[in-house]
Amino acid sequence: MCEYCDMIGDKPKAVVLLSGGLDSVTALAIAREQGYEPCALTFRYGQRHAVEIEAATRIVEAMHVHDHKIVDIDLTVFGGSALTADIPVPKNQESSGIPITYVPARNTVFLSFALAYAEVLGAYDIFVGVNAIDYSGYPDCRPAYIEAFETMANLATRSTVEGTAKLRIHAPLIEMSKADIIREGTRLGVDYGLTTSCYDPDSEGRACGECDACRLRLKGFREAGLPDPGRYAKSANRAVA
Amino acid sequence: MCEYCDMIGDKPKAVVLLSGGLDSVTALAIAREQGYEPCALTFRYGQRHAVEIEAATRIVEAMHVHDHKIVDIDLTVFGGSALTADIPVPKNQESSGIPITYVPARNTVFLSFALAYAEVLGAYDIFVGVNAIDYSGYPDCRPAYIEAFETMANLATRSTVEGTAKLRIHAPLIEMSKADIIREGTRLGVDYGLTTSCYDPDSEGRACGECDACRLRLKGFREAGLPDPGRYAKSANRAVA
Repeated sequence: MCEYCDMIGDKPKAVVLLSGGLDSVTALAIAREQGYEPCALTFRYGQRHAVEIEAATRIVEAMHVHDHKIVDIDLTVFGGSALTADIPVPKNQESSGIPITYVPARNTVFLSFALAYAEVLGAYDIFVGVNAIDYSGYPDCRPAYIEAFETMANLATRSTVEGTAKLRIHAPLIEMSKADIIREGTRLGVDYGLTTSCYDPDSEGRACGECDACRLRLKGFREAGLPDPGRYAKSANRAVA
Repeated sequence: MCEYCDMIGDKPKAVVLLSGGLDSVTALAIAREQGYEPCALTFRYGQRHAVEIEAATRIVEAMHVHDHKIVDIDLTVFGGSALTADIPVPKNQESSGIPITYVPARNTVFLSFALAYAEVLGAYDIFVGVNAIDYSGYPDCRPAYIEAFETMANLATRSTVEGTAKLRIHAPLIEMSKADIIREGTRLGVDYGLTTSCYDPDSEGRACGECDACRLRLKGFREAGLPDPGRYAKSANRAVA
């Protein structure tokens, strides 16, 4: 018998955007702690690091999430990012401005699908692990953006227009540092060994330790005073973070 | 030599959502008349009426649109609509409330992709043929929704945040009756024989004449005092509209 099923009961459902990374799994754990039954949503969007999909699947199994949709969307048709086009991922660089790993309108596309999924589920809550502190400078990770999306969403669907509840976009990590996120997830029992953050993992899914995402992750664990259980390539220089 | 290429020159690009229906082709003609170079965007989203894709392709060829992206997105993964799930399309029914042909968050998903495409093109204008008068009662066809999407879009992307121009969602048909749309498109030289509106065409792509979309279309042509050049099934009772 599943201890989580037993716990779920008549909890309200919430859609959780689950990339397979450190932030999204923490958002999932927070959604559950806040009393929601999480329904996970993952995208296969032509990203180089398809290892993310495997990580999301491992997380869903380990955390007994009963509803997980993986949606195929083709963002490569437009290109324009190091994550979806044939552009090298920068290594060991200080960020300035919005980096090349930015994918045009990615969070807007992801949240739009989450809105569709929420409506079909009869859910009024969407959790997204965006973060505006230790982040990569993406415009669609900021509080003003999340608020504007929520306003739009409440005018967009049958359930938000005809229903009685208001749709809410929860971004519980938005004001947290990476170290705070790691501490909070650790408190909630998240196994970060299941997650992947690297933009450019090797053929066996091991992190490079040098891209922007790896650097933010390593810095976060160091500041939290916790070991990073992630898998890194042997050649990865984890000291650069 | 293409007379349209010659005309394009340094015109600003605009993304035009092109379903292959009457409204979207009129929006395309209006975008061109307003001085934009239209870049068409069509979705293969698991709709029953895939004949729409063929219509969009015919329109793009006939109207010499040089940039046309067809994006695969899987809205069937969620279901919840007669257009994407195994639910019959209603025939000869008066509308009341939001009908079963409503696809959860469809325009939000479509506009999100248009936003991504616009950013990659360096465009700041998106045209969408939504209509709040002779329409099917969809929430994401109303002016308040379009305005909220525009506000969100201007906080969402690199080009709207770092750029100097404001992204605009143009909905030139939003306050027009179906008859007005048909008159305007006819004035602009649109060949409505290329378009398809039916939610439930037969195997040869001929319209049923009885679904909500056919009824609105037939009523529009009648009120405009113009013949409908669309292809209808022989059995279609075009008098019911």
